[in-house]
Amino acid sequence: MRILVVNVNTTESITQAIARSAQAVAAPGTEIVGLTPYFGADSIEGNFESYLAAIAVMDRVMAYDQPFDAVIQAGYGEHGREGLQELLNVPVVDITDAAASTAMFLGHAYSVVTTLDRTVPLIEDRLKLSGLWDRCASVRASGLAVLELEHEPQRALEAIVHQAELAVTQDKAEVICLGCGGMAGLDEQIRQRTGVPVIDGVTAAVTIAESLVRLGLSTSKVRTYATPRPKKIIGWPGRFGR
Amino acid sequence: MRILVVNVNTTESITQAIARSAQAVAAPGTEIVGLTPYFGADSIEGNFESYLAAIAVMDRVMAYDQPFDAVIQAGYGEHGREGLQELLNVPVVDITDAAASTAMFLGHAYSVVTTLDRTVPLIEDRLKLSGLWDRCASVRASGLAVLELEHEPQRALEAIVHQAELAVTQDKAEVICLGCGGMAGLDEQIRQRTGVPVIDGVTAAVTIAESLVRLGLSTSKVRTYATPRPKKIIGWPGRFGR
Amino acid sequence: MRILVVNVNTTESITQAIARSAQAVAAPGTEIVGLTPYFGADSIEGNFESYLAAIAVMDRVMAYDQPFDAVIQAGYGEHGREGLQELLNVPVVDITDAAASTAMFLGHAYSVVTTLDRTVPLIEDRLKLSGLWDRCASVRASGLAVLELEHEPQRALEAIVHQAELAVTQDKAEVICLGCGGMAGLDEQIRQRTGVPVIDGVTAAVTIAESLVRLGLSTSKVRTYATPRPKKIIGWPGRFGR
Amino acid sequence: MRILVVNVNTTESITQAIARSAQAVAAPGTEIVGLTPYFGADSIEGNFESYLAAIAVMDRVMAYDQPFDAVIQAGYGEHGREGLQELLNVPVVDITDAAASTAMFLGHAYSVVTTLDRTVPLIEDRLKLSGLWDRCASVRASGLAVLELEHEPQRALEAIVHQAELAVTQDKAEVICLGCGGMAGLDEQIRQRTGVPVIDGVTAAVTIAESLVRLGLSTSKVRTYATPRPKKIIGWPGRFGR
Amino acid sequence: MRILVVNVNTTESITQAIARSAQAVAAPGTEIVGLTPYFGADSIEGNFESYLAAIAVMDRVMAYDQPFDAVIQAGYGEHGREGLQELLNVPVVDITDAAASTAMFLGHAYSVVTTLDRTVPLIEDRLKLSGLWDRCASVRASGLAVLELEHEPQRALEAIVHQAELAVTQDKAEVICLGCGGMAGLDEQIRQRTGVPVIDGVTAAVTIAESLVRLGLSTSKVRTYATPRPKKIIGWPGRFGR
Amino acid sequence: MRILVVNVNTTESITQAIARSAQAVAAPGTEIVGLTPYFGADSIEGNFESYLAAIAVMDRVMAYDQPFDAVIQAGYGEHGREGLQELLNVPVVDITDAAASTAMFLGHAYSVVTTLDRTVPLIEDRLKLSGLWDRCASVRASGLAVLELEHEPQRALEAIVHQAELAVTQDKAEVICLGCGGMAGLDEQIRQRTGVPVIDGVTAAVTIAESLVRLGLSTSKVRTYATPRPKKIIGWPGRFGR
Repeated sequence: MRILVVNVNTTESITQAIARSAQAVAAPGTEIVGLTPYFGADSIEGNFESYLAAIAVMDRVMAYDQPFDAVIQAGYGEHGREGLQELLNVPVVDITDAAASTAMFLGHAYSVVTTLDRTVPLIEDRLKLSGLWDRCASVRASGLAVLELEHEPQRALEAIVHQAELAVTQDKAEVICLGCGGMAGLDEQIRQRTGVPVIDGVTAAVTIAESLVRLGLSTSKVRTYATPRPKKIIGWPGRFGR
Repeated sequence: MRILVVNVNTTESITQAIARSAQAVAAPGTEIVGLTPYFGADSIEGNFESYLAAIAVMDRVMAYDQPFDAVIQAGYGEHGREGLQELLNVPVVDITDAAASTAMFLGHAYSVVTTLDRTVPLIEDRLKLSGLWDRCASVRASGLAVLELEHEPQRALEAIVHQAELAVTQDKAEVICLGCGGMAGLDEQIRQRTGVPVIDGVTAAVTIAESLVRLGLSTSKVRTYATPRPKKIIGWPGRFGR
Repeated sequence: MRILVVNVNTTESITQAIARSAQAVAAPGTEIVGLTPYFGADSIEGNFESYLAAIAVMDRVMAYDQPFDAVIQAGYGEHGREGLQELLNVPVVDITDAAASTAMFLGHAYSVVTTLDRTVPLIEDRLKLSGLWDRCASVRASGLAVLELEHEPQRALEAIVHQAELAVTQDKAEVICLGCGGMAGLDEQIRQRTGVPVIDGVTAAVTIAESLVRLGLSTSKVRTYATPRPKKIIGWPGRFGR
Repeated sequence: MRILVVNVNTTESITQAIARSAQAVAAPGTEIVGLTPYFGADSIEGNFESYLAAIAVMDRVMAYDQPFDAVIQAGYGEHGREGLQELLNVPVVDITDAAASTAMFLGHAYSVVTTLDRTVPLIEDRLKLSGLWDRCASVRASGLAVLELEHEPQRALEAIVHQAELAVTQDKAEVICLGCGGMAGLDEQIRQRTGVPVIDGVTAAVTIAESLVRLGLSTSKVRTYATPRPKKIIGWPGRFGR
Repeated sequence: MRILVVNVNTTESITQAIARSAQAVAAPGTEIVGLTPYFGADSIEGNFESYLAAIAVMDRVMAYDQPFDAVIQAGYGEHGREGLQELLNVPVVDITDAAASTAMFLGHAYSVVTTLDRTVPLIEDRLKLSGLWDRCASVRASGLAVLELEHEPQRALEAIVHQAELAVTQDKAEVICLGCGGMAGLDEQIRQRTGVPVIDGVTAAVTIAESLVRLGLSTSKVRTYATPRPKKIIGWPGRFGR
Repeated sequence: MRILVVNVNTTESITQAIARSAQAVAAPGTEIVGLTPYFGADSIEGNFESYLAAIAVMDRVMAYDQPFDAVIQAGYGEHGREGLQELLNVPVVDITDAAASTAMFLGHAYSVVTTLDRTVPLIEDRLKLSGLWDRCASVRASGLAVLELEHEPQRALEAIVHQAELAVTQDKAEVICLGCGGMAGLDEQIRQRTGVPVIDGVTAAVTIAESLVRLGLSTSKVRTYATPRPKKIIGWPGRFGR
């Protein structure tokens, strides 16, 4: 089974970290292919960048010329999943949904700890659209930008642990979701520090994608995610960012 | 005052119809400028096309090189408004929100009549994100594609009137919102046939945009719609579709 | 176009302040007529007074013997709008709704800053009934009574600014609505102090009423706001308070 | 114990029917006093009339010069309860709330069957404000006006039974609330015809009012229903309708 | 009239305290019978124990061999009410529902003060299932275990008063519900200390059960609470805990 | 890895069918152990039976004397999961949640098709408690009892397909969840007949349980599902039904 794990930003090192993290939990026989968009921002921290990433992810997946069995969109709280679902016949799993969905099996309420405060409403809105909001205790920002997670891992860890602790003690979260693809790999350390299960959306998404494939399930095509109707389109595919 | 009214699809005749409709209700002294995206689909009827339109609308607005006072995104239920709000300092009004917001001043519940069934969930989701869902009685599809509205106006009218009547009698709507930018101009006929107020989002948006400008109000920049942080972006602006 | 702006309390100086504020933003050609009820309390800070005001406002409007194009009910969180909508064929705009509806075009969430804590539930309930509650971050009380706003403007300003700041920093509001007709005129100062858009319901309502008139829209008469059925009524019109 | 049961309309025969119905279920030692407002409409079927009734009920209760232990507002879906709660120190029970609250002890979902379609939104809104909406399966209109219930009891019965049956079979209601004070006395017949428990709000309210008195409980005065602050009021009390 | 008041735990002294408290408010002619389950935990503070209690309460009621008119399940936030409703033809009142339902007649919002933090989600969930959640301001834990209420009444009183005060000042509760059957009898002291109405679910349930019986109302048997279908059951009735 | 799949009823043939179905999708190296409760009803179709099953499932799992890695509760809409979560340190997956959670990755809305109408509210309530209700289009009953599924498979198939079709066409479901453990194995046929993805909760639960184990995740023990406190318990473990 081959699963495409698509980064939402154009930072190649993040793609590699995500792919490594994904491969580490993949079942024997699952090949993880990390993809980096051809265009867009080097980190996504708002709606403009996220909308650009939505198209860039679809563009990158459509440009992939080998067969694949599932796609993971590896950005937390980003736009675009619904478009991919229309374009593809294989399952699409967003890490935002994967983490929340997994969290709900483990505790009565979960919180998300993310990067900047400005991304909190995006995550909240995506969780609402996905129908996974009801048991979300809070979405908290660590105050660190996406790229600071890469460059200052220890400071990032401290900031995330601090917000995770507040989520547990004040917001009554019983599970923590790591709210950024770039946090992949921090889960074990945070779990030890907070004492609650910590979920990295990337690894959760890998097991969900594998499960869907194994169960022979894919996106329903009867309505919302039906294949786009044939029509005249200018500038797509293949003219962005290349 | 100059207001940009941006079509979400690439069909120039629709842009012109929208702009005419907008200009017809504009206050003396308001100049309406209709813009057509440089890329994207000739009609938007799903998430993939809508995400492409989101970027195409931002791209087109950013390419406009004259001063302007407000922007109207003239697509019903489309993605993208939040991105424009980040990029601009002038007010942005989406016609989905404009119609619903106006409807709520006129009746206890409103319905939207749109084109294809597959676009219904997009509209519902946008209304939920905008906080305007509570008093929505229903979103109903006429079953006609966007371009059929142009080519078969009489059949479109009948189909829309039929759904509007069902919305009033079965769903208890007291106001009807026309759920497609391309329906601009049908409101009066439908009002006569159904006996309830009928709202065209484009004209509603013009008065709201004018009002915001007159009141000296614009998008809050403290959090969700703050200006994007400076970062390295590939392929933006200026490399799409041209 | 003539718009009646009806104060909900019997304090004539507040009526005049509201009318001045309304006239200041009105379009050329719009005449604002300020009306003071013939009976009721000199300030409204609870349900009993608000119910009395509901009838007093209807009574005052029905006693107005000139033609008019729209009515603004200039009390924040008060009962009565639905009754006016039944009695009249022209649009009715409540400033509570006008402010919230306008705020939602400017930010992801808004807060209301009002007078006394006891009026908070009234405002919350009215926003819920109007379907405008979803994106309300909080309703906060400054602790000052309505008439103190008149007599101690500086102290009022400080108290309102303080609550507005808490709304922004703690409740994540991105827009502030001034939750009292008597606060008309404070918006600019508060905006400068908080850095977020501040909305005065009276001025917002003027532009909305003008827009509805210009678009040829008025209250739907098919159900909730249908004209009252003819029946035997004792004590109405014309026997209250005169 | 003396309980005032206040009709919301000015039709004395309805007051008497309500009072008889109330007395029939009252505990030994409970005296029911039926009161008819001094002003207002002879039947309440909309917001204007209901707002007038809100004041008329408060006026009538304040004019009552004997001691009493509780007040029942005997109109379904009417405005005004909150005002009475501010003015009085004894418990106030609205029959809308009494019926819904009782229904929730008896079945998983309840429906209300009322008079005219135009009153449905009023009832829905009152149930929402009272926090009793969650398990309401539907509010259905029999299509008969309040006074037709008096003049054509058999036809009224049939129309109500028909809607009750639809509520049970289609809306999955397990309990029926009679949605009009004037339906008092029909409950037993409707129960026999539909096979589900049928609740008359007046009798339910009597037992609730008695219970509150017996438990020594009354309206909380710390916030929403605090006694009105002393202020200058024109036209109250005593100048309405007399 | 005979009402069974069933304790959910196996501590006989708590059963007696509850029964005394119930008898004290019962109407003349009402006989209260306190029942203790034959099996289960000596205090219920979590789901496992509560599920065991659910069965133990049904078992105990079915083993009662005299006629009775209503049953009160005297545990706060416990599972099981729906099962009793299926098995019996007389009304069943859970004290969680009884307290919340009563509170809503007295204030705009209520809070529950219970024992341990771990029981808070159980109570919240039960209130949500019962449709009584909308006006719940908060559920707060005093931090004391059920049996500590018995053994350290003064310390318990202080802890409960403290949380009740926070509920009123911070969460804006206007009424307090005592969230544990074992708190019966503390209501008057807490009312004096907090100034808001305090509701003990047991006494509230007695008046509600009496009211339902007097009104001739009982559980609807058309759907959710229909009598169980005859089927082969192992180990029931009569083999548990004896 | 060993996963216990616990039937909720006492019909051994259903346990075997469920276990076969589970084993068929299990990963290499996963051993499925089917368990049948020692007591309870031979099919579960209501609250009384479901509460009994809740305890019976916990009892059966606690009596299992070999190591295991996860537990699947194989009843649709049943009580009890929370109790198991308290008692165990390994993950617990309820098939109700597993099916709904999986469905949400595949379509915008899902419906559940279950057995008898009386079980619909149980399923709705469980989905609400699990936070998976938001995107549930409907829960529909086929009208067949659990054991009829076994004895009349073809008639059952037709009835389920009919309701599934109504769910898709009328309720706008895009995915169907089979709402009964005994429906395991029908998914493929129903998918062919309806054209939408069909999810059997048992197989979905197997992949979710395996995923949680593989990710090293288990139930959070900090609050709701903390291990029960040590206390005196009568009749547990080991005295039920044996």
